[in-house]
Amino acid sequence: MPAIAHLKTDHYRIPLPRALEDSMHGSMADFEVITVTVTDTDGGTGVGYTYTCGENGGAIADILGREMPPRVAGRDADLIEALWKDLWWSFHYGGRGGPTVLALSAFDMALWDLKARRMGLPLYRLLGGYDAQVPVYAGGIDIDLSPAELVDQTHENFAKGHRAIKMKVGRERLSEDVAKMAALRETFGPDMPLMADANMKYTVDAAIRAARAFRAFDLTWFEEPIPPDHPQGHARIATEGGIPLASGENLRSTWDFRTLIESGVTFPEPDVTNCGGVTAFMKIAHLAECFHLPVTSHGAHDVTVHLLAACPNRTFMEAHGFGLDAYIETPLALSDGTARAPETPGHGIVFDWERLERLRA
Amino acid sequence: MPAIAHLKTDHYRIPLPRALEDSMHGSMADFEVITVTVTDTDGGTGVGYTYTCGENGGAIADILGREMPPRVAGRDADLIEALWKDLWWSFHYGGRGGPTVLALSAFDMALWDLKARRMGLPLYRLLGGYDAQVPVYAGGIDIDLSPAELVDQTHENFAKGHRAIKMKVGRERLSEDVAKMAALRETFGPDMPLMADANMKYTVDAAIRAARAFRAFDLTWFEEPIPPDHPQGHARIATEGGIPLASGENLRSTWDFRTLIESGVTFPEPDVTNCGGVTAFMKIAHLAECFHLPVTSHGAHDVTVHLLAACPNRTFMEAHGFGLDAYIETPLALSDGTARAPETPGHGIVFDWERLERLRA
Repeated sequence: MPAIAHLKTDHYRIPLPRALEDSMHGSMADFEVITVTVTDTDGGTGVGYTYTCGENGGAIADILGREMPPRVAGRDADLIEALWKDLWWSFHYGGRGGPTVLALSAFDMALWDLKARRMGLPLYRLLGGYDAQVPVYAGGIDIDLSPAELVDQTHENFAKGHRAIKMKVGRERLSEDVAKMAALRETFGPDMPLMADANMKYTVDAAIRAARAFRAFDLTWFEEPIPPDHPQGHARIATEGGIPLASGENLRSTWDFRTLIESGVTFPEPDVTNCGGVTAFMKIAHLAECFHLPVTSHGAHDVTVHLLAACPNRTFMEAHGFGLDAYIETPLALSDGTARAPETPGHGIVFDWERLERLRA
Repeated sequence: MPAIAHLKTDHYRIPLPRALEDSMHGSMADFEVITVTVTDTDGGTGVGYTYTCGENGGAIADILGREMPPRVAGRDADLIEALWKDLWWSFHYGGRGGPTVLALSAFDMALWDLKARRMGLPLYRLLGGYDAQVPVYAGGIDIDLSPAELVDQTHENFAKGHRAIKMKVGRERLSEDVAKMAALRETFGPDMPLMADANMKYTVDAAIRAARAFRAFDLTWFEEPIPPDHPQGHARIATEGGIPLASGENLRSTWDFRTLIESGVTFPEPDVTNCGGVTAFMKIAHLAECFHLPVTSHGAHDVTVHLLAACPNRTFMEAHGFGLDAYIETPLALSDGTARAPETPGHGIVFDWERLERLRA
């Protein structure tokens, strides 16, 4: 069996075409991408990555670049569950959550890519295989837009192939969020799947008030109304607000998902780059299925398309507004509201390393 | 008002006199200490630190040394709640938990030290002041010891001034843990406060079995029977096991503590170096008081003595087996099972920087 021979970690800071803003993260001018390339003793390679909103990237790169290699060198690269468990416990004190889990996620993704490439299988087929054609939605970061600007952006998203839209909410005045929602429904009709994302802006009572105001617009889900640390709060919003809840981008383990699902979150939304990697993402998807729930996603659509293509309970995948597409050889193509998992071995992402080189952090 | 002028971060790796072992962290030959010294525009200084079991220290040092300074320079050093909240949210994506919170804990500790030194007050008096004399227990890391060796170690601890003892449990055979517990009770009598710490080793059912076996030995608490991610599991162990539960060293926020307290953990056990610093520790202590519970502690006894000296609901403070005392000018002195918060301004810890210099990571 080929063993892990080498890890190469790189840390980039990528400027955004325009600064993005949501209700809680402030203005974001760039984002970080941390990549890890695993080489095995046969010369096979796998690539994983994670990203941040601009912070914690140095910590992630230190763990991947300095702490991981001596712990995994010589290990059988196929035994991903064994590696995952050993790393989880090796880093647990001080590392349960935060940058450590983002580093683990990137490494785990690289191992799955390596294995799938060695098998000559696209990742979604290695993981089980369900249906390569995955429904997507446009995850806009657009809290600063006016109703007219949001309608324009949505037209642009339709031109790109989107048929489902998520908008940001959580402006100072709830009536402004409502006006934007009304403009979308008026322009695009009652059947367009529409989601709203508050990025943890509200208190529980404010979230219930907002949910009730949003109820008229038939949202598919209401995302992250409050921070993820408050299970009882989610339960109240789900019951009293009366619209389905989504959460996940700020959860860092399968167990966090179990707790929020039991609290009434019915659209679990893991991010493969921060929930613990492919290994954890698939477990969360399976957990959701066992709870009779769909699974959606956050970020990293290029890899996630394979994961949701392996899940019978998948619903819309987020196609994220971040600008990583410009640094990937064959970005995900949209067609009539769906994307297709590529049939190339592994996850199929080939980074434009030369272009990235100029953005080294 | 003096503003934050400068942060100096240092990262050390300190060898242990002998390798320590518990049920889940494996053998530990050294530990990391990451210090941060905050200087204000008046030349005042405050010192904070955090530590790890040997991993994640580079990540912590990167956040403290590279990411924090531009975010806090020029800020009013007295407004710790404002700084804490801004940093929590600034680092939240990718940073809610893990190394980021350990970095925040060290920085927060330095701010409290700075403020107390500026006021000329020992930290426990600045924080409110209750009673400088704090009961302590010896937190041994001794799972590998035989019953006779554990009795010998406990005699040594009594000679140092200890009157309460925590032992590790979670050996392959439960009967071996029980034999050690029986040896302690036989030698030191029924009234010595005795705690047992499983370091997350058990499943829920195994923990209930162990709790029932331990019940004959009248434990003050049973610590970390399972990983912290399982609230319902804690509830079952508390109810079916029938002995009080402690947990906290692996929780990374006030909200984590709320969840576990509601699940039946009756000895919350924050660690000031990883729960979010002095600011978060005091809130957890107050939360416990509002739930009619005591508060104990993990690690960092040199600083924690001030925090528990400010809490009317404090119970035994852990005096930890780690070897930081050798690098502190005036280590905490024990007397008949108690330690006294010093009356020097701030937390009163003066590191032996020259000796530490040789251990730079």
